[in-house]
Amino acid sequence: MSKLQRSDLEKMDREDPLSGFRGHFSIPDNHIYMDGNSLGALPLATAQHLNRVVEEEWGQGLIRSWNQQGWVDSQLRLGDSIGELLGAGPRQVLVADSTSVNLYKLAAAALDINPQRRVILTDLDNFPTDTYILQGLTEQRQLELRCVPSSAILDAIDDDTALVALTHVNYKSGRVFDMAHVTKFAQQQGALVLWDLSHSVGALPVSLDAAGVDFAVGCGYKYLNGGPGAPAFLYVATRHQQQAQSPLWGWFGHQSPFTFENRYKPAADINRFQCGTPSILALAALECGVELMRKADMQQVRAKSLALGELFIQLAETHCPELEIITPRDPDVRGSHVSITHPQGYAIMQALINRNIIGDFRDPNVMRFGLTPLYMRYTDVWDCVQAIKEIVNSGSWDTSEFLTRSKVT
Amino acid sequence: MSKLQRSDLEKMDREDPLSGFRGHFSIPDNHIYMDGNSLGALPLATAQHLNRVVEEEWGQGLIRSWNQQGWVDSQLRLGDSIGELLGAGPRQVLVADSTSVNLYKLAAAALDINPQRRVILTDLDNFPTDTYILQGLTEQRQLELRCVPSSAILDAIDDDTALVALTHVNYKSGRVFDMAHVTKFAQQQGALVLWDLSHSVGALPVSLDAAGVDFAVGCGYKYLNGGPGAPAFLYVATRHQQQAQSPLWGWFGHQSPFTFENRYKPAADINRFQCGTPSILALAALECGVELMRKADMQQVRAKSLALGELFIQLAETHCPELEIITPRDPDVRGSHVSITHPQGYAIMQALINRNIIGDFRDPNVMRFGLTPLYMRYTDVWDCVQAIKEIVNSGSWDTSEFLTRSKVT
Repeated sequence: MSKLQRSDLEKMDREDPLSGFRGHFSIPDNHIYMDGNSLGALPLATAQHLNRVVEEEWGQGLIRSWNQQGWVDSQLRLGDSIGELLGAGPRQVLVADSTSVNLYKLAAAALDINPQRRVILTDLDNFPTDTYILQGLTEQRQLELRCVPSSAILDAIDDDTALVALTHVNYKSGRVFDMAHVTKFAQQQGALVLWDLSHSVGALPVSLDAAGVDFAVGCGYKYLNGGPGAPAFLYVATRHQQQAQSPLWGWFGHQSPFTFENRYKPAADINRFQCGTPSILALAALECGVELMRKADMQQVRAKSLALGELFIQLAETHCPELEIITPRDPDVRGSHVSITHPQGYAIMQALINRNIIGDFRDPNVMRFGLTPLYMRYTDVWDCVQAIKEIVNSGSWDTSEFLTRSKVT
Repeated sequence: MSKLQRSDLEKMDREDPLSGFRGHFSIPDNHIYMDGNSLGALPLATAQHLNRVVEEEWGQGLIRSWNQQGWVDSQLRLGDSIGELLGAGPRQVLVADSTSVNLYKLAAAALDINPQRRVILTDLDNFPTDTYILQGLTEQRQLELRCVPSSAILDAIDDDTALVALTHVNYKSGRVFDMAHVTKFAQQQGALVLWDLSHSVGALPVSLDAAGVDFAVGCGYKYLNGGPGAPAFLYVATRHQQQAQSPLWGWFGHQSPFTFENRYKPAADINRFQCGTPSILALAALECGVELMRKADMQQVRAKSLALGELFIQLAETHCPELEIITPRDPDVRGSHVSITHPQGYAIMQALINRNIIGDFRDPNVMRFGLTPLYMRYTDVWDCVQAIKEIVNSGSWDTSEFLTRSKVT
C-alpha cells in the first residue's frame, strides 16, 4: 500500500461501479467535498424539481395541491422510501419535523410505555442535541438521564432502564454500535431502544426490522442529500404503534385532521407522530435526495465507503505519521467518515478549506472527513492527504480566525 | 349599495393604492383566489430566490453557507422582520418549527412560570391544533384545559388560571378578540396570555409590545405567503426571556451550540426557543413573502381588507339572501375573511371551485372566503358573489365527492 500511486486510484475511479452517480450532483469546480456527513451535496435534479413544485404545484395549483399533488400524504410516502434504505417495512417511517423534535416525541413515548422505570441511558459522547433533548425530558419528568462511556453501555443497563438511546454511528469518532446486539441485550432486560441514524442512513446498510428495533430517528440533510436543515424522520415499530403516543398532539397526528373535532384522537398508525403542517418545499427537496440514494446498491455504497476509509487511513499513516487516527480501523465498527487529530487540527482544517478541500472540525482537535460514495472519488482521498501532508510539513496552517467553522454535523 | 354595478368596482380597483402588489404574485389565469387565509399565493420573487439559494448557496457554497450566507442567524433575522409586522421590538420574534410545536413550547414555558395555577383557559372554538396541543400538555402535567365559549373567556379567568391561550382571529367565524383588553384583564388576575396570530399576521395591524402580550405564535403560510407548510414563528416578550424555557432542548437553542458541550445551557435570549436545525429552503421561501408584505402599508392593508369584507357582505345580502353570514358585520371585530353558511355549503363551494373561484369549506356548512388585499381585487368579490348567486338560484351545486376539501386553514 505504501507504494500506491495516484494512478492506481485513477484506475479505481474508472472501475468504480458507483462512478456514474457523481454526475448527478453539483460539486463546485476544483473542490474536494468531504463534509457530506454534515451537509450533503446538491443533487442536480433538486433545483428543477423544486422549481416545478413552487411554480406549478404551489403557484398554479394553490390550495388544491394538498390533495391533487398528494402533499397531504408526503410525509408518509417519503417515510416509506427512507424505510427501504433502513430495512423497515412500510408504514413504520415518517418524515417530520427535526431530528431533535422527533427524538423528544419518541423518547417521551418510550417512557410512557415503561412507566415503572426511571432511567434513560445514553452514551457520554452522544451528539449534543440528543443529550440535550434527553436532559430536558428527564428533568421535566423528574427522571434520570444516565450518561456512560459507549464501552460501558451494556453493563449499565439494569432493571431501572426505561430506554437506551444511542446514536448508531458516533458523530466524532465514527465508531458504530452493534445495533442488533445492543437492541436484543437491552430488550432482554426490559428496556426499549431508540437509535439515532443521522450518520447511518444512506451511508451503510441498516436493518431495523431484522434487528427488532423499537424506535429510531434520523436526519435528512447528511447522506440523504436533502438540503440544509432538511426534514428529519422517525421510525416506530408496528408493534408499538397502538400504544406509543407523541407528547406533541398536533392536528396532523389526529386520526381525522380535517373534520376539526374538538377532542384529540391520535391516528391509529405511524401518522400519530406527525404534528403541525409540514413544509412541502423542504419535503420536495428531500425527496430528490432520497430518490437518488435509492437508485444505489447499498452494499456497493458500503463497500466503497469502507474502501475510501481504508485508503484514507493508510495514506494518512504513510504520509502523515504526525496525525492520530481516532476512527476505528476495524471496518466492522467504522462508519462513513474518518476523524483524525492534531494539536493544530483547527488551523490545518482551515488551510484545507482555503484550498477548497472541505472537511470540518470538532472540538478540541478533531478533523473530520466525510466519505460519500455517491460523489467522492478515490483520487479525492489521495489529493486530500497530499494537501494535509504539505500543510503539516510546511507548517503553513491557517491560524487566522476560523472562517467556516461548521455549524451542523 | 344595492345599486352598485361592476363598473363601480372596476373604478375602485383602479384607485386602489395597493393595486401594484398583485403583479408581484403568481395568480393562475381566470382564477379568483379567495383562500389566501389557508395557503397564500406565490410571490413571483420566491421561485427565483429559492433557485439562487439552492444552486449557489447550497450547491456551490455547501457547508460554508451556514456562516457565509448567514443561514445560522436566519431564524432570528426573519423573526425580527415579522416582528415589525406585529409591533414587536427586535429579538422577541423567532421563526422556528410549526405553529403547533411553537405553541407547545410557549404554553409549557408559561405553565412553568405560573406553577401554582392549574388551568389553561381557551376558546371552545379555537383552531383544533391549538386545542389538541393544549390537551396533550395539560394531560401530561395532570393539569386542566378549560374550554369555554369565546364570549365567556373573561368571566372564566380566575386565580387558578395559569395561561389564557386564544387565537386572535377565529379561523371559522373571522371574529377578532380585543387583544389589548383581554391581555390586560387576564394579567390583572395573574394569568399569562398566549395569542395565536395565524389569521392576523399580514392581515391586520397587531401591536404586541403595546398590548403587553406575554407570548404569541403564528403561521407563515397564510397571509405571509411563505409557501405550503412554511415555518412558523413565536414571540416571547423580553421580560420573560430569562425565565421562560422551552421544553424542547434542541442544540440550536443552546447558548453556544457549536462548542458541543455536554450540558444544555439555554441561550440567554429568544434563541433559546430554537430547537433542531431549521430548513433553510423553507426559510428562504418565507423570507420572500415577508419582504413583500413589509413593503405594504399595514393600515392600507387593513382598510382594503375591511372594504373587501364589507363589499362581500353587502353584495351577498343583496344578491343571495338565502345565505347566512356568520362573520361579524362590525369591522372592529372582523378579521380578513368572510364566512357564510348554507345547508348545501359544501356542494356550493365545490361548484365554485369547478369555476376556478377558490375558497374553502369547514364543517358543518361554512364556506370561507379569504380577503388578501395584496392580490385581490374588488371585482373579484363581485364575480364571486355573482357566481354564488347563479349556483344557488339554479341549484347547480356539485354534489359529487368533494374534490379539493381543503387540508389546511
